[in-house]
Amino acid sequence: MVSAALSAGAAEANDGPIGFYAPSWAEHMRWERLFLSAPTPQSARKTLRALTEEPHVAGTEAGRRVAEQIRAAMAEAGFEAELFEIPVLLNYPKHVGAWLTQPEAEELSLREAGHVADKDSMSQEVFPGFHGYGAEGVAEGQVVYANYGTHDDFLKLKELGISLQGKVVLARYGGNFRGLKVKEAQEAGAAGILIYSDPADDGYTQGDVYPDGPFRPESALQRGSVQFISVATGDPSTPGWASSESSERVEWSQAIAARIPSLPLSYGDAQRILSRLSGDNVPDGWQGGLPLAYHLGPGPVEVRIEVEMDYAVRPIWNVIGRLEGAVEPDQWILLGNHHDAWTYGAVDPNSGTTSLLEMVRGLAEARRAGWRPRRSLVVASWDAEEYGLVGSTEWGEALAAELDEKLVAYVNLDSSVSGPDLGVDGVGSLRDFVAWCAADVPEPRRGGSLLKTWSGRLQVEWAESSPICLDHPQESFELRLDPLGSGSDYTVFLDHLGVPSVSFGFGGRYGVYHSIYDDFYWMERFGDPEFLYHTAAAQLYGLMALRAASADILPLRFAPYAAQILKFIDELEREALRSRRQAAAAEKAPERAPLEVDWTPVRAAQQRLSRAAQALDQRLVELQQAPEPLAADRLQALNRALGRIERAFLLPQGLPGRPWFRHAVYAPGFTTGYAPWPLPGLTQALKEKDAQLWEQQAAALIERFDAAVSALEQARASTD
Amino acid sequence: MVSAALSAGAAEANDGPIGFYAPSWAEHMRWERLFLSAPTPQSARKTLRALTEEPHVAGTEAGRRVAEQIRAAMAEAGFEAELFEIPVLLNYPKHVGAWLTQPEAEELSLREAGHVADKDSMSQEVFPGFHGYGAEGVAEGQVVYANYGTHDDFLKLKELGISLQGKVVLARYGGNFRGLKVKEAQEAGAAGILIYSDPADDGYTQGDVYPDGPFRPESALQRGSVQFISVATGDPSTPGWASSESSERVEWSQAIAARIPSLPLSYGDAQRILSRLSGDNVPDGWQGGLPLAYHLGPGPVEVRIEVEMDYAVRPIWNVIGRLEGAVEPDQWILLGNHHDAWTYGAVDPNSGTTSLLEMVRGLAEARRAGWRPRRSLVVASWDAEEYGLVGSTEWGEALAAELDEKLVAYVNLDSSVSGPDLGVDGVGSLRDFVAWCAADVPEPRRGGSLLKTWSGRLQVEWAESSPICLDHPQESFELRLDPLGSGSDYTVFLDHLGVPSVSFGFGGRYGVYHSIYDDFYWMERFGDPEFLYHTAAAQLYGLMALRAASADILPLRFAPYAAQILKFIDELEREALRSRRQAAAAEKAPERAPLEVDWTPVRAAQQRLSRAAQALDQRLVELQQAPEPLAADRLQALNRALGRIERAFLLPQGLPGRPWFRHAVYAPGFTTGYAPWPLPGLTQALKEKDAQLWEQQAAALIERFDAAVSALEQARASTD
Repeated sequence: MVSAALSAGAAEANDGPIGFYAPSWAEHMRWERLFLSAPTPQSARKTLRALTEEPHVAGTEAGRRVAEQIRAAMAEAGFEAELFEIPVLLNYPKHVGAWLTQPEAEELSLREAGHVADKDSMSQEVFPGFHGYGAEGVAEGQVVYANYGTHDDFLKLKELGISLQGKVVLARYGGNFRGLKVKEAQEAGAAGILIYSDPADDGYTQGDVYPDGPFRPESALQRGSVQFISVATGDPSTPGWASSESSERVEWSQAIAARIPSLPLSYGDAQRILSRLSGDNVPDGWQGGLPLAYHLGPGPVEVRIEVEMDYAVRPIWNVIGRLEGAVEPDQWILLGNHHDAWTYGAVDPNSGTTSLLEMVRGLAEARRAGWRPRRSLVVASWDAEEYGLVGSTEWGEALAAELDEKLVAYVNLDSSVSGPDLGVDGVGSLRDFVAWCAADVPEPRRGGSLLKTWSGRLQVEWAESSPICLDHPQESFELRLDPLGSGSDYTVFLDHLGVPSVSFGFGGRYGVYHSIYDDFYWMERFGDPEFLYHTAAAQLYGLMALRAASADILPLRFAPYAAQILKFIDELEREALRSRRQAAAAEKAPERAPLEVDWTPVRAAQQRLSRAAQALDQRLVELQQAPEPLAADRLQALNRALGRIERAFLLPQGLPGRPWFRHAVYAPGFTTGYAPWPLPGLTQALKEKDAQLWEQQAAALIERFDAAVSALEQARASTD
Repeated sequence: MVSAALSAGAAEANDGPIGFYAPSWAEHMRWERLFLSAPTPQSARKTLRALTEEPHVAGTEAGRRVAEQIRAAMAEAGFEAELFEIPVLLNYPKHVGAWLTQPEAEELSLREAGHVADKDSMSQEVFPGFHGYGAEGVAEGQVVYANYGTHDDFLKLKELGISLQGKVVLARYGGNFRGLKVKEAQEAGAAGILIYSDPADDGYTQGDVYPDGPFRPESALQRGSVQFISVATGDPSTPGWASSESSERVEWSQAIAARIPSLPLSYGDAQRILSRLSGDNVPDGWQGGLPLAYHLGPGPVEVRIEVEMDYAVRPIWNVIGRLEGAVEPDQWILLGNHHDAWTYGAVDPNSGTTSLLEMVRGLAEARRAGWRPRRSLVVASWDAEEYGLVGSTEWGEALAAELDEKLVAYVNLDSSVSGPDLGVDGVGSLRDFVAWCAADVPEPRRGGSLLKTWSGRLQVEWAESSPICLDHPQESFELRLDPLGSGSDYTVFLDHLGVPSVSFGFGGRYGVYHSIYDDFYWMERFGDPEFLYHTAAAQLYGLMALRAASADILPLRFAPYAAQILKFIDELEREALRSRRQAAAAEKAPERAPLEVDWTPVRAAQQRLSRAAQALDQRLVELQQAPEPLAADRLQALNRALGRIERAFLLPQGLPGRPWFRHAVYAPGFTTGYAPWPLPGLTQALKEKDAQLWEQQAAALIERFDAAVSALEQARASTD
């Protein structure tokens, strides 16, 4: 087993290079050393300062300037670089306002208070509080508090007999993607919704607030998209197809989108509402961090929301840079990060853009010294991610056939740095590869490697929270990539096109997300004062790029994938059992009983997958260690086969209710948006307590597992 | 198995009477019906009003008046009732004060704000904020915030390099017994300690605050004892022996007690300190509910505490009422509740006293109609419980030999009602008995029986939180009595004398504990407006009294006890494994590695216990169902044997570091005070990572298990 060291809980991968024959590795190490010394904190600092000079929302002139700046940097580094313009529907706020109307009339603020020492925070250039793809209209009515506005929260309100008809919902950020709060509210009959940042979630309850600390101050607003992200991503007027000058467009009034007006709110203003709300005290888990007992309403406090938008089809600019592969030019490694920002976006996304540009600069160093990638490297800087992954989705849809043919891996970056803690989400077949790369990048503060700190942190979490069965006391920690949900640009590549994907970033104490305070001042004081993690992110990103582009054999390992799937099954079965126990304990039997299902066929298929994966992994190790390399044509055939294995997980019909999402193993939660539902078909059937859906989805999943078995076996057979 | 119905998760006991032969049961039911109709909400309301007319701290004239009132009620009901006076050391506040001294000078309040509609809350008769058995002295210094002031919290401060030498600790209530906060602080070198009620724990974070709701308002103070309860209970000047006029007394300066001044504080005042505290943000789990980011300090804020006490040996008055047993007068069933209160004590303890007097009134009804208990009933109303279980402990120590001979069960009540949720703590041998009694008392609001609601609530908790092992998915809910810790009057009987004990009460939304607001007004508005639960508590208490006193065979069952012990072992082993996992994951190896111990011998002993318990239970069922009852002398021999089985769990040497605590299965946590450490010797060895202590304690525990096996077998043999 190639992952034995990791499986045993070791912090360092020690199995050596993955996918390199010894002679190419010996040569390759030179390029890596060259590359690793290129990114510097000084340069990263300068780049971030330049990128955050002004707010640059997608489709604006400032957005274009940033795109051009990135294109120029890529070109200077020797990439073929161009702007890829796409016309898409975007909205800007024309008139937004919110007021308390009862018991007093007071205006609520959609602007943030500036801090004199931070000039950016004093600017009026930033848009006031509004929502991307938000609905226009006026809503006025009594307020009902809906906690996080999740599916379960709205079910709870219904159970408590609180009607939302004509009411204005007050919900807090967190728990699910904001667009799904709007979706739930409008389906419940609400007239409008205010979404505020509760101090318990990213304000003073978490630590000191800006400007004394990194957390959200009382006037801060979280802007953002209210797209229905788990159902449809990209331009809502071209659902499932590419936007272009000539493309068909759905009428906005017919699009799957928010239909009730919504606005973000600060907790300073939310307190003015919550302190006047009556009705019962909230259920367990609904209380936030404001200094008062939260009530559900409705009323007596009433509010009025006014939203006028400037909706238009506007150009956005993806930046695409290319380095042609020397041996397998039609195998692409794609690296991407978005560049549009709601405000200055020092964290989101410019820390990522900075790391991406530092990486590009490093690759240029290697290239100038003679390095040529085996495969083609494509570096993308996406636009309009903030509106709903628009740039990446429309590009992915436009190039779908070519990408299906050529794209073998996607490495995503979004906010690369908001603190020191590395987090990596991705498919199981990239686990060993990522761990190997992270083992060779130094942790800039704590010493050792990134892998050591990352794996150590995960092990602490595992030690604290994983269930303990006394019958298996010896169960040990295993490094895993967290599953990908949605909310960033990997979505089209993984969920729609079936490309092995990974996304990483350094997280931390970050409370100013999508506010005016997400600026250079914040980053210099709180996020990464020495820019060490911007540099580390560039190094990790670049090692992944160099190795994935140069390895003789595509550096995938499938046994960890099968093992991860087994964990998903275990977790789901545990959750199903918990639901049944809860239903049995409930005073009132639920309307529909939780399913009691037979896991045997799914588990048997996972075992077939696991066997085939182990067999292929073993063969890959043998090949790499063989005295003679594979002949060039057979090596290319093997790489083509390896690059397509992930496609086997694509469901021909897509997922129930959202056919664009086709991956059978990973998807954003239907009701969560950001958070993943691994094995989404089974998860949905269990949540909806739909036995027929379970049967269908289990059959479809098993079919995909068996298709993957065939693909694994085919790859292996190609080397016989 | 007699508990099959319960084991299967059924909400109702359906095994019929425990310990009654059919003819006596037929007669007994009459008394029960008579009894159950006696307690009424109207009468309970009147009694509570009378008991809460004035504050009645132990040792005061008001305390004596309440004792006399209770004695008179018992006498009127036909009990031989007397005041049992004991001279004990008590303190009252002579001069207490607290001030902010830096950066501003401000006085902190040790008085609570009155609410005009509640005359009791306006009174100045209540003592200001002070601590029972608190130290005298002056402390002045910079403040350090210590979260709950638990053992782990102080370890964390040490690990963070924060010295407490000469500092004043600010700790919040909760997590452990308040005296242990003082103990930890003084051992860490602090000069003094302020203990405040954080709104996250019983203030607005939990719901509306007084006078709008039942939770703690901003000026409320939690008075209470700072005795080192887990080490020594009762009068600290007579540790381990009875207080009397002639008894030897330890000099107060030599007693095991608080040595640094301490005072309670409101969260209104705590906010004035915390908002001025600097230093780092607090670790995870330390943030409370005030609207600011909590800091550790030290300083720059400084405070001054002044405490002068009036310490003296003062009389306290237990009230003891008796009904002589008709057949086995030397087998005593003891029922107890304290009567002293820090303020008015509508909840604590007068709800309990009210239920106790309602029960007494009900027993009188049965008695007037001809009922005579088989065993003797002793009803106790303890004094000075609030200072540290003083009345019960000194009485238990004074009568130790007689109680060891005669006392077969103790049923404790403290605060009988602060809401509608029944909770029962007790030894495993009383589980089936309690369930059977609870099955025959109606739930006054929701219908069905108390058992149904109580068991249902526990099942919901179990369904949500119990671990799930996929290998044992069929594991099912089993009703259990929570283990007894300390903090109420059962302590001397269970932990010191080895008497089967149980303690119950109806809990709920209760935030005014030990404050001036714990008064009749609060109870009428929030706690039990219709006095339905006061009545239900009296009914449950009385059914336990009637049945325990009248059953032909003592109504104990031991298989559930053995099963509960097995759960304790499982939980402890799981915790030990978790500690090892955490140590393995920690960045820095801990100074001492968690123990890796062999559980086999303890588990084998538990199995022997379980087999003997099942055999005895089976015999008890057979006896009860036999066509002929046992001969009178053999029945009495059996009862004597049954009544002594619990004594087998007493450790001859007591527990490590606290020999007065002798029970091998139950004890208050050494570092928690209130919360239990089941299997305390093993728990302590694991927590202290002391392998030698583990060996000793495991051997001692196994010896006690085997002693219990002998006692079980002897009881069984007595019926051969």
